[in-house]
Amino acid sequence: MTPEQFRQYGHQLIDLIADYRQNIAERPVMAQVEPGYLKQALPSQAPQQGEAFEAILSDVDKLLMPGLSHWQHPDFYGYFPSNGTLSSVLGDFLSTGLGVLGLSWQSSPALSELEETTLDWLRQLLGLSAQWSGVIQDTASTSTLVALISARERATDYALVRGGLQAETRPLVVYVSAHAHSSVDKAALLAGFGRDNIRLVATDDAFAMDPQALRAAIEQDLAAGNHPCAVVATTGTTATTALDPLRAIGEVTQAHDLWLHVDSAMAGSAMILPECRWMWDGIELADSVVVNAHKWLGVAFDCSIYYVRDSQHLIRVMSTNPSYLQSAVDGEVKNLRDWGIPLGRRFRALKLWFMLRSEGVEALQQRLRRDLDNARWLAEQVEAAEQWRLLAPVQLQTLCIQHRPEGMEGEALDAHTQAWAQRLNASGAAYVTPATLNGRWMVRVSVGALPTERGDVQRLWQNLQDVVRG
Amino acid sequence: MTPEQFRQYGHQLIDLIADYRQNIAERPVMAQVEPGYLKQALPSQAPQQGEAFEAILSDVDKLLMPGLSHWQHPDFYGYFPSNGTLSSVLGDFLSTGLGVLGLSWQSSPALSELEETTLDWLRQLLGLSAQWSGVIQDTASTSTLVALISARERATDYALVRGGLQAETRPLVVYVSAHAHSSVDKAALLAGFGRDNIRLVATDDAFAMDPQALRAAIEQDLAAGNHPCAVVATTGTTATTALDPLRAIGEVTQAHDLWLHVDSAMAGSAMILPECRWMWDGIELADSVVVNAHKWLGVAFDCSIYYVRDSQHLIRVMSTNPSYLQSAVDGEVKNLRDWGIPLGRRFRALKLWFMLRSEGVEALQQRLRRDLDNARWLAEQVEAAEQWRLLAPVQLQTLCIQHRPEGMEGEALDAHTQAWAQRLNASGAAYVTPATLNGRWMVRVSVGALPTERGDVQRLWQNLQDVVRG
Repeated sequence: MTPEQFRQYGHQLIDLIADYRQNIAERPVMAQVEPGYLKQALPSQAPQQGEAFEAILSDVDKLLMPGLSHWQHPDFYGYFPSNGTLSSVLGDFLSTGLGVLGLSWQSSPALSELEETTLDWLRQLLGLSAQWSGVIQDTASTSTLVALISARERATDYALVRGGLQAETRPLVVYVSAHAHSSVDKAALLAGFGRDNIRLVATDDAFAMDPQALRAAIEQDLAAGNHPCAVVATTGTTATTALDPLRAIGEVTQAHDLWLHVDSAMAGSAMILPECRWMWDGIELADSVVVNAHKWLGVAFDCSIYYVRDSQHLIRVMSTNPSYLQSAVDGEVKNLRDWGIPLGRRFRALKLWFMLRSEGVEALQQRLRRDLDNARWLAEQVEAAEQWRLLAPVQLQTLCIQHRPEGMEGEALDAHTQAWAQRLNASGAAYVTPATLNGRWMVRVSVGALPTERGDVQRLWQNLQDVVRG
Repeated sequence: MTPEQFRQYGHQLIDLIADYRQNIAERPVMAQVEPGYLKQALPSQAPQQGEAFEAILSDVDKLLMPGLSHWQHPDFYGYFPSNGTLSSVLGDFLSTGLGVLGLSWQSSPALSELEETTLDWLRQLLGLSAQWSGVIQDTASTSTLVALISARERATDYALVRGGLQAETRPLVVYVSAHAHSSVDKAALLAGFGRDNIRLVATDDAFAMDPQALRAAIEQDLAAGNHPCAVVATTGTTATTALDPLRAIGEVTQAHDLWLHVDSAMAGSAMILPECRWMWDGIELADSVVVNAHKWLGVAFDCSIYYVRDSQHLIRVMSTNPSYLQSAVDGEVKNLRDWGIPLGRRFRALKLWFMLRSEGVEALQQRLRRDLDNARWLAEQVEAAEQWRLLAPVQLQTLCIQHRPEGMEGEALDAHTQAWAQRLNASGAAYVTPATLNGRWMVRVSVGALPTERGDVQRLWQNLQDVVRG
């Protein structure tokens, strides 16, 4: 494709995307297709000769669109908001169009320096002290893996340059809440700790980690000759947006010299609101924190921000320095390959920069406040309605709800919950996420998609009341 | 930004990118800026109010462009080709514009199924048997980490569900060539093996791994009570594109039940040419292989393809199954979160699909053959010229060259090499990569940027001859 063809087709594609976003509410929010529908519809081999761009766009419309669940839809209440503001989308387009790579500062200086600058802007917006420095990772799963590997190496005085984790004689132990995200467990397993060395710390009635239980677990491990290594706390758990008490936890980790990693992937966005900062009071006691700017905040996926207090420590674990990546300025610059797993890096700061500049901080704050208000409004309706209940405090924009007809409980209630959630999702009128809490099914309603206004939430509440009738 | 504003600014951005690609040859290929130039030029805080899009685009032009090294430039011979064909760029735009996420099949069925289909197309183009299945990762660094963690778990009968790597009593050992990419070493360290348990296997005169030396190293470890675990072989090493003999290596790994991972990040693209397939003869003896479609092949970064022979094994290591990600169709579909580290995934198959359909296989083959011819032509000039020499066989598109004035050697030769490479890069006329080989500096010339034609390579040769004169 020549630049002139790109110009022509690019304009067509911009219109397609603008139309898609403008008219998205007309589509069923959840894909209504059967497994294998697309594999069966596509040829089994790549074409030998190039095809017309129109043919590709026609297949996008006919074959792909029906197989999408629309995350940017006003009726999307699934999982979490993964907002792609259109300003950030343009920033990402520029990144892809330029096609430059950050292997080292020299391989595109602007890429490294814009990342450093915009992450410092965001650090200030989140209310973090100047001790933190950030780097863009793909997802919180990766950020948490990086944190746990860093913790492992700090605890072993950098065993990686000797016999590695396998040479350690006292088992290293990681402490997480039973309500931590599945990626935390996965990261600990991938980092080599082993399931036997992951402690699930008890939680309180609001599903937040109990610092006394944490302290007791650490002391028990010390008495058993184990080596307590890291705690992963969460600001805004996946199921209920529970808030682990960071200050109390941080006091425990500092007393015992453990690494404290804070998973704030979802709720971190709310920290741009001063009135929400109490939620991670004590964050300055942590060693690392992850905030997914690609969630509620609105930067097009992927843009997971990993802030670390002692970057020298991260670099010591992640750095490589082959001759072909060395340059005369290495002492003066930040080489982001030494801040994570991948060597090559996209120019991802562009999408954050485009969004912050184009929207401005106040508009972002206003949108998040809109969503908090909408979630509170919905929570009030649920609380006031007969047979409905909230299963967890609504501290942010996620509701955990149940509809319980008179006398129904146990497995019958589970079946009822799953059935109405399934009916609602299949109707195309809303996308909600069934999940378990304390072993029983409930429905998570995550408010905060970009175009979701009060009227949409009112319609959702009507739909919920209708759908439970069967 | 509203969809209507997006439409207007999007058209402007398409024109900016089309112009950039069309006129890229007019820019100096390597950025000519000093460390800190951009950080100093930008405000220290994010704006409270949104700014006009024109102001952002103006800063792109004034502040960012001078700080880019242009990977899509015809005079780019650095590192490796990271080609972003314009058809794949449009596929990536669509992915970002749609803003859908692959957490599970259900969260956007088309995302998973198009990835499965296009990676099967590519599998056939690469000449891999139907036993392989693929998944898109971000980079080869991550793919190799996934491979080594998989190897670790297979060798320990899945210690991750028990005491982890730290509970193993016999040290697990990884074998790599001294010419393996720095990411291989990094992956082994991150996976917890430790430097003491990484064996650098001797290479032959062409910088390829010696299978006899590999066998001897394994036997020595067995005799010492260690646990040989994995071999990482390379098809097309970074420095010289050396080809490790996969068949002979595969016979050793099969005899001793070791995991064989093949790093074909760069040279894998050439496997779409039947005449190059001999380079990875024996690939079917491997357990995993990585091919970076975002390098020479031309898919916009990032699109690293990880093919694995036994996907059930990968899933066993990577899967998580929290309640909120479960759905009724889980037994029938591919949930790509279980194929790698991240949970959330972009719709990255779109850019591969757009490129394969828009260009067609024959045009891709033709472009790669053009680059091989250009590299051969340049190699002939270097070989025929006085004082110039090739330091390694030119089997693909990378040349390792030295200019040696009569009688010059050792450190004087190193200084001369680094000086002329620096002069050439600083001139803006070409981007080449100085690197060491056998402890001495040489210059890597990596042919194969999208717009690089024979005339460009001829000009490079003239520039090389001029620049060594000082």
